[in-house]
Amino acid sequence: MIQTPYLLFLGDAPDQLAAKVAQGIKDWRPDNAVGQFRMEGCNADLGLTDMTLVQAKEAGAKTLVIGVANRGGVISAAWKKVLVMALEEGFDLASGLHNLLSDEPDLVAVAEACGRALHDVRVPEVEYPIANGIKRKGKRVLAVGTDCSVGKMYTGLALDAAMRERGLKSTFRATGQTGILITGDGVPLDAVVADFMAGSVEWLTPDNDDDHWDIIEGQGSLFHVSYSGVTMALIHGGQPDALILSHEPTREHMRGLPGYALPTLEQVRDMALSLAHVANPACQVIGVSVNTQHMSDSEAKAYLAEVEDRMGLPATDPFRFGSEKLVDALTAL
Amino acid sequence: MIQTPYLLFLGDAPDQLAAKVAQGIKDWRPDNAVGQFRMEGCNADLGLTDMTLVQAKEAGAKTLVIGVANRGGVISAAWKKVLVMALEEGFDLASGLHNLLSDEPDLVAVAEACGRALHDVRVPEVEYPIANGIKRKGKRVLAVGTDCSVGKMYTGLALDAAMRERGLKSTFRATGQTGILITGDGVPLDAVVADFMAGSVEWLTPDNDDDHWDIIEGQGSLFHVSYSGVTMALIHGGQPDALILSHEPTREHMRGLPGYALPTLEQVRDMALSLAHVANPACQVIGVSVNTQHMSDSEAKAYLAEVEDRMGLPATDPFRFGSEKLVDALTAL
Repeated sequence: MIQTPYLLFLGDAPDQLAAKVAQGIKDWRPDNAVGQFRMEGCNADLGLTDMTLVQAKEAGAKTLVIGVANRGGVISAAWKKVLVMALEEGFDLASGLHNLLSDEPDLVAVAEACGRALHDVRVPEVEYPIANGIKRKGKRVLAVGTDCSVGKMYTGLALDAAMRERGLKSTFRATGQTGILITGDGVPLDAVVADFMAGSVEWLTPDNDDDHWDIIEGQGSLFHVSYSGVTMALIHGGQPDALILSHEPTREHMRGLPGYALPTLEQVRDMALSLAHVANPACQVIGVSVNTQHMSDSEAKAYLAEVEDRMGLPATDPFRFGSEKLVDALTAL
Repeated sequence: MIQTPYLLFLGDAPDQLAAKVAQGIKDWRPDNAVGQFRMEGCNADLGLTDMTLVQAKEAGAKTLVIGVANRGGVISAAWKKVLVMALEEGFDLASGLHNLLSDEPDLVAVAEACGRALHDVRVPEVEYPIANGIKRKGKRVLAVGTDCSVGKMYTGLALDAAMRERGLKSTFRATGQTGILITGDGVPLDAVVADFMAGSVEWLTPDNDDDHWDIIEGQGSLFHVSYSGVTMALIHGGQPDALILSHEPTREHMRGLPGYALPTLEQVRDMALSLAHVANPACQVIGVSVNTQHMSDSEAKAYLAEVEDRMGLPATDPFRFGSEKLVDALTAL
């Protein structure tokens, strides 16, 4: 578990897009973001207060989060200098970079000397159990996609925000790097060893109040041959009471698989529901979340209306039109 | 890849059952088994020639395989003495034990000094790729079970033996510890990191002759919530042309999951086939393999006849009645 709140490290980000992890933290957990740290040449700006390490420490920040992609997969000397200083100032470090903080001997040595933690959120920090399949208390919802990267994390975070706003009990349960950095906790599911995948999802979503919703971040797709095993573990480890179908209608083939067409929403509904019933016979599909970013406003509305009509389920683009329909469907369960 | 042939280490096995890995090697790959090494107090006997390390070396053995379970999860001092001597005599060591050879500093030091390899077949030795889903040449068959431990490995090994006997081209592709030790090669799928599961199965079953069959060892079950993700990766990474349904009719609940009933063969057929069609639209279910060990001869025959009648598929217990029906069905494809 990563100590919050954060100072967001934007480094020498070449543009705003390079800082999208930091942007995600600021958008979804503004209370976690005390300020931003920018180096010379940084072209990203989150609109947060620029702070020195000392100022951020005084403002209560506990962890310096690398909220930016690095260039060429290397932690540069300029970055390293700031990271070492941060450890010396008493910050933990957290990163979702491919090249790990814990693979840098100098950072490891300084962290040890200062008693600070290095969090590489691509690497599991927990020994997860093997799933036991025992029914847990509380309620769980999971987004399952026609493909990877269709907006499942966004859907979950938006749903969580809308439920909290209505005073409902909900927790977003991160299963990927960005989600873990945003919330400070979670399971890096794609890095978990096969035998423990479903168990790690059980661990992530334990017994809870009867009226509490765990919103489990979805991954992969049952129809994506590279990652379907991960999706399966989410469905069987998560024991969802509700499924949301996620889709991006303009995609021409499965991500990274040119020979593979996307399944229909009906195919995903039927397959996911059959599999979910193994762990939770009461599971229902409650709605559709569509990523309409490549459609005009009228196209998006027409598409959503068509899906609602065809499938008899509420359909929305949470980014464009909010997630109220999905919250309504969950509370009606 | 483990160097063959082997000297089979039976240690101080308390009974024959404790040496079942060695028994599997002797049964399925007799050419791999030069002899057996037994210590004082060993109550197992494979009927192979008892050999000293020197005799086995002269007979051509390259690897000492630990073919026996150890007591209390510890590699005892008595075992250690033999293992060190074997390394010094020029043997590699191979083991499927939970406690790893590579976690024993003395074995690691001696192996390094002697230039020998330590193979812990529970740990991947390869950096597997992410699956790319590209259609491969050659044919593949996979057993999918109603549950774990219903005889999928046995079915695959028996099918492989029967196909070779008919002069057909086939290769058993091991995906578990015992299978890897038997054949000397394979993927320890339950220990592979989530993102690379399907890719490891693609790696294991590469392009081959058009008339060659890879017989992929099945794991887990789509209906076993602890391990279903592993089964999924086999179906999508394996791109099977043919599926065999495996079942043990007397089991009262899913292995290790008291609250979970077994699915019907029809449920497994429909679910596995739908998922297999994502990677290979031509995939067919070609037969049923039933583990009838807890049934009388007449019960077994009646059960198999009933399954054949009900499902319109050939059904056999490969151990009891041979796998000819399954070979016939494969060659008829």
